[in-house]
Amino acid sequence: MIKSSTLLAGASALLFSTAAFANSHDPAAIQTKALQDSLAYEITEGLTTEVGPRQAGTEAEARARDWSVAKLKSLGFQNVRNEPFMMPTWVRGAETAEVTGPYPQKMHVTALGNSASTGAAGIEAEVAYFDSLAAMQAVPDGSLAGKIAFVTHDMHRTQDGSSYGAYGPVRWIGPSVASKKGAVAYVIKSIGTDHHRNPHTGNMNFAEGVKPIPAGALSLPDADNLERMIKLGKPVTLKLVMTPQNIGQQESGNVIAEVTGSDSSKGMILIACHLDSWDLAPGAFDDAAGCGIVTAAAKHIMDHGQPLRTIRILWAGAEEVGLWGGKAYAKAHTGSNHAIAMESDFGADSVWRVEFNLPDGAENIEKQIAQALLPLGVSANGPPATGGADVRDIIASNNLAVIDLQQDGTRYFDLHHTPDDTLDKIDPKQMRQNVAAWSTVLSIIANSDADFTMPAKE
Amino acid sequence: MIKSSTLLAGASALLFSTAAFANSHDPAAIQTKALQDSLAYEITEGLTTEVGPRQAGTEAEARARDWSVAKLKSLGFQNVRNEPFMMPTWVRGAETAEVTGPYPQKMHVTALGNSASTGAAGIEAEVAYFDSLAAMQAVPDGSLAGKIAFVTHDMHRTQDGSSYGAYGPVRWIGPSVASKKGAVAYVIKSIGTDHHRNPHTGNMNFAEGVKPIPAGALSLPDADNLERMIKLGKPVTLKLVMTPQNIGQQESGNVIAEVTGSDSSKGMILIACHLDSWDLAPGAFDDAAGCGIVTAAAKHIMDHGQPLRTIRILWAGAEEVGLWGGKAYAKAHTGSNHAIAMESDFGADSVWRVEFNLPDGAENIEKQIAQALLPLGVSANGPPATGGADVRDIIASNNLAVIDLQQDGTRYFDLHHTPDDTLDKIDPKQMRQNVAAWSTVLSIIANSDADFTMPAKE
Ligand SMILES: [Zn+2]
Ligand SMILES: [Zn+2]
Ligand SMILES: [Zn+2]
Ligand SMILES: [Zn+2]
Repeated sequence: MIKSSTLLAGASALLFSTAAFANSHDPAAIQTKALQDSLAYEITEGLTTEVGPRQAGTEAEARARDWSVAKLKSLGFQNVRNEPFMMPTWVRGAETAEVTGPYPQKMHVTALGNSASTGAAGIEAEVAYFDSLAAMQAVPDGSLAGKIAFVTHDMHRTQDGSSYGAYGPVRWIGPSVASKKGAVAYVIKSIGTDHHRNPHTGNMNFAEGVKPIPAGALSLPDADNLERMIKLGKPVTLKLVMTPQNIGQQESGNVIAEVTGSDSSKGMILIACHLDSWDLAPGAFDDAAGCGIVTAAAKHIMDHGQPLRTIRILWAGAEEVGLWGGKAYAKAHTGSNHAIAMESDFGADSVWRVEFNLPDGAENIEKQIAQALLPLGVSANGPPATGGADVRDIIASNNLAVIDLQQDGTRYFDLHHTPDDTLDKIDPKQMRQNVAAWSTVLSIIANSDADFTMPAKE
Repeated sequence: MIKSSTLLAGASALLFSTAAFANSHDPAAIQTKALQDSLAYEITEGLTTEVGPRQAGTEAEARARDWSVAKLKSLGFQNVRNEPFMMPTWVRGAETAEVTGPYPQKMHVTALGNSASTGAAGIEAEVAYFDSLAAMQAVPDGSLAGKIAFVTHDMHRTQDGSSYGAYGPVRWIGPSVASKKGAVAYVIKSIGTDHHRNPHTGNMNFAEGVKPIPAGALSLPDADNLERMIKLGKPVTLKLVMTPQNIGQQESGNVIAEVTGSDSSKGMILIACHLDSWDLAPGAFDDAAGCGIVTAAAKHIMDHGQPLRTIRILWAGAEEVGLWGGKAYAKAHTGSNHAIAMESDFGADSVWRVEFNLPDGAENIEKQIAQALLPLGVSANGPPATGGADVRDIIASNNLAVIDLQQDGTRYFDLHHTPDDTLDKIDPKQMRQNVAAWSTVLSIIANSDADFTMPAKE
């Protein structure tokens, strides 16, 4: 359905001047149209089916960039290009876990990004169990010598994803803490909220001066099982084999496309997602969907004629493994004229809240957006917008205004960084609501001549 | 809670004669008590935590038998024993699947029981796709030469599990069909109803005279992905590595325990489950739960005093891999005096229907049971009872009466034979309803002096 109307719009653009369309950016009309969107799903389906998992720095991510450049060109965007950069690359090896006593059984484990290797022979040691990161932090340095430290948590589902902030440190800093305490390896209950045998990977970094040790995540049912074993009171031994490697600097890249605005003196609107995924899954939710959503929204604007401001689409590379794409983008584009940054990297479920960080004087724009999003069930009473990982650095370097469209994260951490992040998890109806919300916001801000310059930071 | 009341009943048994208790088998009172059961869950937790996966013929199943004998003795059952038998054993090896072109990505696969090996080097070949078993059956013999045959299906969830009968042949006979058509290997969309990256294994047998080929199941999301690739129109190549082995005759065993009845001239009630599981998971639903349910029900009867008839509990070995336990049981016990056989092997969700295959003259027993089960939401308008896999042979050899307590199978095939069949899937409330239904039925039939002799088969 969207395809025939797209063709029609394209045909009309040949017959009439683009100026005529600048006035056709009625947010309500665009919203209605975007609620019929099929492009966001089509992009997500293409990336997950024709490319699949696409870890940064690997040939799979390079294939993803080729696919993306071709796709964005075929959609009619301007200035489509890849901006390459180099980044350090860690790749997964074998990975197995097995309780060797007193209740021998295999467990599902995956290495955390930047984990050290156990060597092919593996590490077998007694498990030292902690029910929280704080409990492990409380024991003396050296007290975990010869042990595999194991930390669980009580993460629950939250609409705003805030439980990730609360329990994420078990993954982010736990490995360093375990190493400092003397542990020979570290395993966690996956940072997630599901009950499937699919462990959640994710990045971590050892603190300066801390010896890297093997660090992995057990699936939630396996972690619960290990916890039950430990509570039976006998010493439990675990054998871990994880053989990841650092393969040095590899090439990644940011794929960029634009809808060129009619007035290049106005700051552009940057809308971002990330193209890379973890290697365990085709990354439908994280973050093919985000790329689909922002791109479909930009396409709806383009199909209604040239906007006032340029909309720049950034499909960032190498987000998962250290936010390298966002850093490279900021470095390359610090001097160029951006007005507002936005990002979609939280799945494909409905937008439920809009958040702003706009300068004084833009209150009318905020009101207009809030009003225009009401038919989509989106509220506007949130904290200030902060942007996402891929636009963090350009926001900081260019002191940009930000708008966040918060998505429902209730089931996001069921899937996050697991093998289970596959196309079937996308709810097309909720995805269309996303595209409609994004299209609505873009139709307003890309055609606004308001001054979005943020006050200089103190 | 159940534990203290159990202690109390035990203490009373010392003070009064067991005859006094034979009259205390009030079905309604036992049902109320059983709705507080914790033993079924405790057994399931023990088997999944302290033993884990327990494939027939392996040391894990032997550990499970040791655990079971100890557990059943500690619960106070009589004549607890292991009855060993030998059976042919197939064990899993490495297993990986990877699309090598045109959209390279890894897939999750598991070998089906009795699959041939690809050898360590694997098999790489073009995929020949069929959307049903019938479609593959329709092509000429030899036409799949050099290809990996791939069959999908449209299985949906059903309360009575009947969709397994409809689509199971894709697994059961598909490998033989593929081999006859010349395929070098065979993969299926897992026979299941979930959307997780956990493939469903299960047994199959090559038909007489058919050359065994490697046969595996892709997880449902992977199969859907492969199907999408194929529908894009280019030839798709798959590389399969699966290295299972046949390790010959190994020992398995049936674990048996009894509640001895007061009148040994009355035929006993046989209640069965299976102790073995597939190797991929600790088999909570399939079938630790069944063992928990039937055993807890027998315990509730025992705790109310000696019943009229002996209740024999059979935790069968080697069900998954060829129903060897049921065969061995029938062979060993054809001559002994059984009255009725029952089995629990369909998870732990609520009983929704009772089915009977009792002789003429037992209508009053059927009515009494139907009436007693009404408070549990169980209906009695079903087809005749047929029993389950572990009691099939003794039913046939001894021409036994049968009662089936049908469980809700809506989510059974989400979990069936996958790594995901873990303790967290048990809903304790539904499990207690099961124990109550079983206890109710046992309280009636184990204390009935009705003649359950089935008419001789023509
Ligand atoms: Zn992401
Ligand atoms: Zn991520
Ligand atoms: Zn079973
Ligand atoms: Zn089974």
